[in-house]
Amino acid sequence: MNIIEDLNWRYATKRYINQEVPQAQIDTLLESIRLTATSLGLQPFEIYDIRSTNIREKMREAAYNQPQLTEASHVFVFAVWTQVTEEMVDQYLQFIADTRNREISQLAGFKKSIMGFLGDKSTEEIIKWSSNQAYIALGKAMVAAAQMRIDSTPMEGFNRDAVDELLGLRDKNLHAAVMLTVGYRDTENDPLAGAQKVRKAIHQIHRVI
Amino acid sequence: MNIIEDLNWRYATKRYINQEVPQAQIDTLLESIRLTATSLGLQPFEIYDIRSTNIREKMREAAYNQPQLTEASHVFVFAVWTQVTEEMVDQYLQFIADTRNREISQLAGFKKSIMGFLGDKSTEEIIKWSSNQAYIALGKAMVAAAQMRIDSTPMEGFNRDAVDELLGLRDKNLHAAVMLTVGYRDTENDPLAGAQKVRKAIHQIHRVI
Repeated sequence: MNIIEDLNWRYATKRYINQEVPQAQIDTLLESIRLTATSLGLQPFEIYDIRSTNIREKMREAAYNQPQLTEASHVFVFAVWTQVTEEMVDQYLQFIADTRNREISQLAGFKKSIMGFLGDKSTEEIIKWSSNQAYIALGKAMVAAAQMRIDSTPMEGFNRDAVDELLGLRDKNLHAAVMLTVGYRDTENDPLAGAQKVRKAIHQIHRVI
Repeated sequence: MNIIEDLNWRYATKRYINQEVPQAQIDTLLESIRLTATSLGLQPFEIYDIRSTNIREKMREAAYNQPQLTEASHVFVFAVWTQVTEEMVDQYLQFIADTRNREISQLAGFKKSIMGFLGDKSTEEIIKWSSNQAYIALGKAMVAAAQMRIDSTPMEGFNRDAVDELLGLRDKNLHAAVMLTVGYRDTENDPLAGAQKVRKAIHQIHRVI
């Protein structure tokens, strides 16, 4: 098995059957997200795992009635940071020092770099930056799912304000950037199951300089 | 081999040895990018593969002198779309129709959705959207590399205007969103090689609702 087979197997699943993904595989999925690379190592997001039927129904309403939100085994929301305070940075540096048995004073230069890069950013710029990191994790989680032959659908088409409100994200300085549903494809009812993949040839997107 | 081992193996490589990644493995990496999921399937980016020593040196200057840009085997720039015209959408729909043996008229509703979503977006909003797609691909490419035991470094710390200028991206309605260097770690000279990975515990980032 290799990643190319995995990526050819997967597709943007629109309809799921009613079957739960085993917890051990969900744990692997979450671990692939936890281990992802993030800018400066800050891991600027949380994963909301929506089990409540009631909330899922409301999320479906906030997402053009897309059936994945109620049919999929699991619905994950990448809730990204909307701010980075000096306190958060200090906490992170202490964590690095503890993990690597270093003195916090040795990380003064790193702190300066982080604050220089993030300290003056607007809320919108922070969200753009933290969302980018969530998208890296999203890509990795999709590979992890495909490797386990679990279907997944990245979802951007939803009302972010409504989902922030539903999940109470604003008070936590978080924002719903993107979602991922996982489960098993409903081959009978999903018109895209089995459809030919549409991708440009490599020479159309690869430029050698 | 599974993705968790792969992700534990990788780290943000700062120093590379002078050894080229075989073309067959670069092809797999590019294929993982080509097959990535993108919003509406539009694949709104190109991959610039920088072989020119001269340009790499200039890119290093535009990136706080980070050594990866001249030491790594390959340097890839994700150059994302800065606009989406109706002509580009029509071309894409024709490609879908050809690939899936459908009539273009059957895709009228899909065209309406695409134009409704993208038609009114500002350049800045298009770049945000297209960059997000590039970051999904970036995540997948990093997994592909790790699976082949090739080191990789996602890079955001560079002057985008300078790189756009160097690669002549603006005239092509493209913008340098993020870079990925790949090669083999220099364990002797890279202080981060072998350093303990710093990641929050899963309960710190996973919320069940």
